[in-house]
Amino acid sequence: MAQVRNKQVVLRDYVSGFPKESDMDIVEGTIELKVPEGYNDVLLKNLYLSCDPYMVALMRDIGPEGFQNYTPGSPLTGYGVSKVIESGHPNYKKGDLVWGFTKWEEFSLVSPTLLFKIEHTDVPLSYYTGILGMPGMTAYAGFFELGSPKNGENVFVSAASGAVGQLVGQFAKLTGCYVVGSAGSKEKVDLLKNKLGFDEAFNYKEESDLDATLKRYFPEGIDIYFENVGGKTLDAVLLNMRVHGRIPVCGMVSQYNLTQPESVTNLAHIIFKRVLMQGFIVNDFYHLYPKFLEFLLPHIREGKVVYVEDRDEGLENGPAALVGLYSGRNVGKQVLVVARD
Amino acid sequence: MAQVRNKQVVLRDYVSGFPKESDMDIVEGTIELKVPEGYNDVLLKNLYLSCDPYMVALMRDIGPEGFQNYTPGSPLTGYGVSKVIESGHPNYKKGDLVWGFTKWEEFSLVSPTLLFKIEHTDVPLSYYTGILGMPGMTAYAGFFELGSPKNGENVFVSAASGAVGQLVGQFAKLTGCYVVGSAGSKEKVDLLKNKLGFDEAFNYKEESDLDATLKRYFPEGIDIYFENVGGKTLDAVLLNMRVHGRIPVCGMVSQYNLTQPESVTNLAHIIFKRVLMQGFIVNDFYHLYPKFLEFLLPHIREGKVVYVEDRDEGLENGPAALVGLYSGRNVGKQVLVVARD
Repeated sequence: MAQVRNKQVVLRDYVSGFPKESDMDIVEGTIELKVPEGYNDVLLKNLYLSCDPYMVALMRDIGPEGFQNYTPGSPLTGYGVSKVIESGHPNYKKGDLVWGFTKWEEFSLVSPTLLFKIEHTDVPLSYYTGILGMPGMTAYAGFFELGSPKNGENVFVSAASGAVGQLVGQFAKLTGCYVVGSAGSKEKVDLLKNKLGFDEAFNYKEESDLDATLKRYFPEGIDIYFENVGGKTLDAVLLNMRVHGRIPVCGMVSQYNLTQPESVTNLAHIIFKRVLMQGFIVNDFYHLYPKFLEFLLPHIREGKVVYVEDRDEGLENGPAALVGLYSGRNVGKQVLVVARD
Repeated sequence: MAQVRNKQVVLRDYVSGFPKESDMDIVEGTIELKVPEGYNDVLLKNLYLSCDPYMVALMRDIGPEGFQNYTPGSPLTGYGVSKVIESGHPNYKKGDLVWGFTKWEEFSLVSPTLLFKIEHTDVPLSYYTGILGMPGMTAYAGFFELGSPKNGENVFVSAASGAVGQLVGQFAKLTGCYVVGSAGSKEKVDLLKNKLGFDEAFNYKEESDLDATLKRYFPEGIDIYFENVGGKTLDAVLLNMRVHGRIPVCGMVSQYNLTQPESVTNLAHIIFKRVLMQGFIVNDFYHLYPKFLEFLLPHIREGKVVYVEDRDEGLENGPAALVGLYSGRNVGKQVLVVARD
């Protein structure tokens, strides 16, 4: 029953505004590689950890209702891909590959409340932090279930090269929509147009008048805006929605610095345009996961849907990887590689 | 075929911001009391005209997409109760009482695109500008169709003593909800609590911290916010919505001065709370009108639903009545009495 070293990424103290690297510590803990007698927990070796924008909300003193915020001195929690080392739960056995909720450390003892077994390993395992995991389900649920897209409709996606956005754009193309994405660098814009199949893309940092920009790309208006950023972008979008338009609100990453959120002034436009705005989180849609896999796996295998990852190696680079999400450093889905098997 | 005098309320010029009385002129026109040969128009004698907050949107240079804005030099259009003087349309005959789209003048020749025959005259005729007309249908569609209320839920209504709000509150009570209304004077607050059956009501002008006010009235949060005002009230509500809450967005009367709309900064709260915001206009719901009458008429006859009107007499007082909507002068539904029969 060896105690082994267990490197962790630990929250130093509650965060206000965007997180900094110094809000987290790298700690050398230890862990006994055994599920305690009588517990139905699962002992995981973490392989890939997912860096996701929502995580900052859990770094605050008061987290969102119904969610467990992080505890100073304890490791962050989040999505990951892991291998089962030992299991006290009948649904999992040693050697299983799983994805779901784990902790930012080398080994984790978790209660398997949100842990999916990985059945398909002919695709990269890291995909289960992204296209085949939480961000993939988020794009699927938000676009298809809440966006109710129809062939020929006009779709706008912000943070379009991110973990979720790049899939929304590809789902829109599969549905026969016209899709435009915004992102924050030339490299990302090129990616959207040349690799991810967006009809058009622009660098929002180079546009001085977002309303005019949107009118240029959407002379007839926007049917679906997949909202990832909030603030000024949303305000310009509200001026350009079509009648009966839909806005699935997935995230507002520009606004997560809640000490100084940008203001939105054009909300009254949702009345005459009869616009639906629907905030959502993926947890309400996991019952669709089997249907989602059935839809998406063939497209991945045939190369009809692709996925761009941005990888950092090693838990010690976790804080920088996470912080980078809020400055747009990552190009594609940000993954932290902890171990390869 | 006598030409008769036809007093009109005419738009002087396009309006920016809220309208002033001087934006309208009282004009003495004439009209021939005859439907021109070959037309299927209907000639109406207008009895009651409805003053509605949306009207300012049609006074601007560019009206909302899909709606006909007013023309300088021509009378305003709007909802009213009228008597048919002559009809070129087979569905209407001389002597019929109707409600629907007419013009701000004594007699109007209209194409009957939105004109309902009044079948039930045991209730006040003016009710067809309010509880049994467009505002009634608005309250019904917004609350029941979009709000999806359940017994025991917590409902907040702004502009709660207005044409729509007073009904939303009563519909909420009929559904077994707890309902709180906000309004802009002591008189209105008293009306909400003592006559309209709201559980609680407050004067928003006397509250310095609306977030704290809402937390006091809704310690467990708000399930349905029926949105009539926008701005600061919405911003405070967003901090107090419950998970899976709904916000039917009927109007944002505080924001119709579009030159200086207030900002909303708390929209990101709709994500974790999975809040639905749905802008709507009543035109999409008129197919429910027979069902609505069947529901509401018995309640009115039994005195279980009441309705408060604020009446002004004479077309020459129309501009003041309309302008008063935007300063909250009216107590209850604002009606303009043009003629009594």
